[in-house]
Amino acid sequence: MAKRLLLLDTDPGVDDAMALQFALGLPQFEVLALTTVFGNVAVELATTNALRLLHLAGRADIPVAQGAAHPLAGTFDGGAPFVHGDDGQGNTGYPPAPTQAVSQPAAELLAEVIGRHSGQVTLVALGPLTNLAHALRLRPSLVHEVAEVVVMGGNAFCAGNATPAAEANVLSDPDAADLVLGAGWPLTLFGLDVTQQVNMPGAVLDELARLTGPLSAYVGQMVPFYRRFCERVRQIDGIYVHDATPLAYLLAPELFRFVHQPVRVDTSPGIGRGKTWPASSDPDQLQRPALRPWLGRPNVKIAVGVQGSAVVSRLREELVKSNL
Amino acid sequence: MAKRLLLLDTDPGVDDAMALQFALGLPQFEVLALTTVFGNVAVELATTNALRLLHLAGRADIPVAQGAAHPLAGTFDGGAPFVHGDDGQGNTGYPPAPTQAVSQPAAELLAEVIGRHSGQVTLVALGPLTNLAHALRLRPSLVHEVAEVVVMGGNAFCAGNATPAAEANVLSDPDAADLVLGAGWPLTLFGLDVTQQVNMPGAVLDELARLTGPLSAYVGQMVPFYRRFCERVRQIDGIYVHDATPLAYLLAPELFRFVHQPVRVDTSPGIGRGKTWPASSDPDQLQRPALRPWLGRPNVKIAVGVQGSAVVSRLREELVKSNL
Repeated sequence: MAKRLLLLDTDPGVDDAMALQFALGLPQFEVLALTTVFGNVAVELATTNALRLLHLAGRADIPVAQGAAHPLAGTFDGGAPFVHGDDGQGNTGYPPAPTQAVSQPAAELLAEVIGRHSGQVTLVALGPLTNLAHALRLRPSLVHEVAEVVVMGGNAFCAGNATPAAEANVLSDPDAADLVLGAGWPLTLFGLDVTQQVNMPGAVLDELARLTGPLSAYVGQMVPFYRRFCERVRQIDGIYVHDATPLAYLLAPELFRFVHQPVRVDTSPGIGRGKTWPASSDPDQLQRPALRPWLGRPNVKIAVGVQGSAVVSRLREELVKSNL
Repeated sequence: MAKRLLLLDTDPGVDDAMALQFALGLPQFEVLALTTVFGNVAVELATTNALRLLHLAGRADIPVAQGAAHPLAGTFDGGAPFVHGDDGQGNTGYPPAPTQAVSQPAAELLAEVIGRHSGQVTLVALGPLTNLAHALRLRPSLVHEVAEVVVMGGNAFCAGNATPAAEANVLSDPDAADLVLGAGWPLTLFGLDVTQQVNMPGAVLDELARLTGPLSAYVGQMVPFYRRFCERVRQIDGIYVHDATPLAYLLAPELFRFVHQPVRVDTSPGIGRGKTWPASSDPDQLQRPALRPWLGRPNVKIAVGVQGSAVVSRLREELVKSNL
């Protein structure tokens, strides 16, 4: 079996850590590199966390490249310590890994690795889309060279989570998201429409917390902080596994349902900032003046349905099996 | 049976005409006055159409007051001739009525009539909310004097129709809508969430077109233009009966389902302009910085579910019975 080559762009983040735990444990995937971005935490902390996660997995051979510290326009907003803890890892207090990031910036590494393995790399974006935007500017031919881009972000047909209008990753850099969703590469968007259906219940979390592998035990220790947030604020039992959802799709696409529509991101400073707005894909409709902002935009493959409990079962099964 | 006293603010409009046909024919309602507003057509044409509709119904005794020609900020955008015809009445070419509007502006008449029948008047808003905003400025005590405000407008939990983000009435004056939805009066919002479930099929329209009453025959002649738009662009059989929906609620509230949440309108110039955004009504959630724009706003009663075919049956039945 040929492995699927992955590049993971991430801002760990508790659910980012779980996504990485999942990706590294699967024989179907080969993780070529990690790139980090501001988002859940500042980019320096994202890098520290990424290095620690790889170290605990015994995969310090995978390079980590640090990326954007702030959105294309504006400043870093301080992240989401109330969701992920001050350290982004549930206030677990682990020491940093002895390893370091490579000197190459994230966007350069993304461009170089995708170019080197043309047609073979799947880019998995789990944070704000700033690094992807920078990489596209560096090397526009990426849109033809990447095998697939899967993004956790947005809310095409449902309310937001960071604001009533917007999902956190897209809101963190709406300009980058608008650019990335309009680039015309083979992109699939996993927004809250589906990730809020992938609800890992407390009983499964309790079981996973008993895993003994070093990375699994670490993730098991960081999950309770995020779980308390989800249970108190989102009023669910357990957690939403946002960031592992696009990875589950790569394994089991048959568990998802999609539509194909052009998408724009609201980059205004108003209350709708960061909303991902799909429009009709009907060429006649797109001639209407009101749809001018969507005219000529590529269709995005938008996940709109998921068999959530089947995804959770698969995640659980693989995490137990790999016990990384 | 005490009649329910109604004030109708309207921009006829084919479905406005059908709403008026419904309201005037019902023994449960007494229409005290009509006010007109720009929207589907320019306000002068809205007034001409309102006067004609009343004349054909034999109700030229009901006063018509002309209102706003443009939104609180900005200019009239030209309306929706592709939906309602150049005359707003399906290009039916009927002559104007011999009657005239009163000299009082719409906002003054609204304020005066509601004040005069304090606690008894239901205000039915079927167009942009500009006249209501002006009336609230003229007489802030209206919020305590009106019995109920029912509004056709917005899209709380679904896509828009004028743009991917926005419904036409709210988009025509987002500033007025934000003011009206925040005023703290007993307001119920009937947006596309429900009005696009009230689909009157072609077979019913064909039956209604055979009614012989002067107003019914006129509406029967104007419907085909709007029906062609709905069938071609919305891809349904028949029409959406947007404007009659809040009136159906006044007769049969048990056919609807509601939530109560604070609502803001996106007044930015971006692609999200005119979107009605509900936020959580949970006081703890409203303390989050991201929800600051919603903090302190009154809950709006938002229609989120409707037994659409039961509403259509009731509309059909009453229109046939009154044969106005």
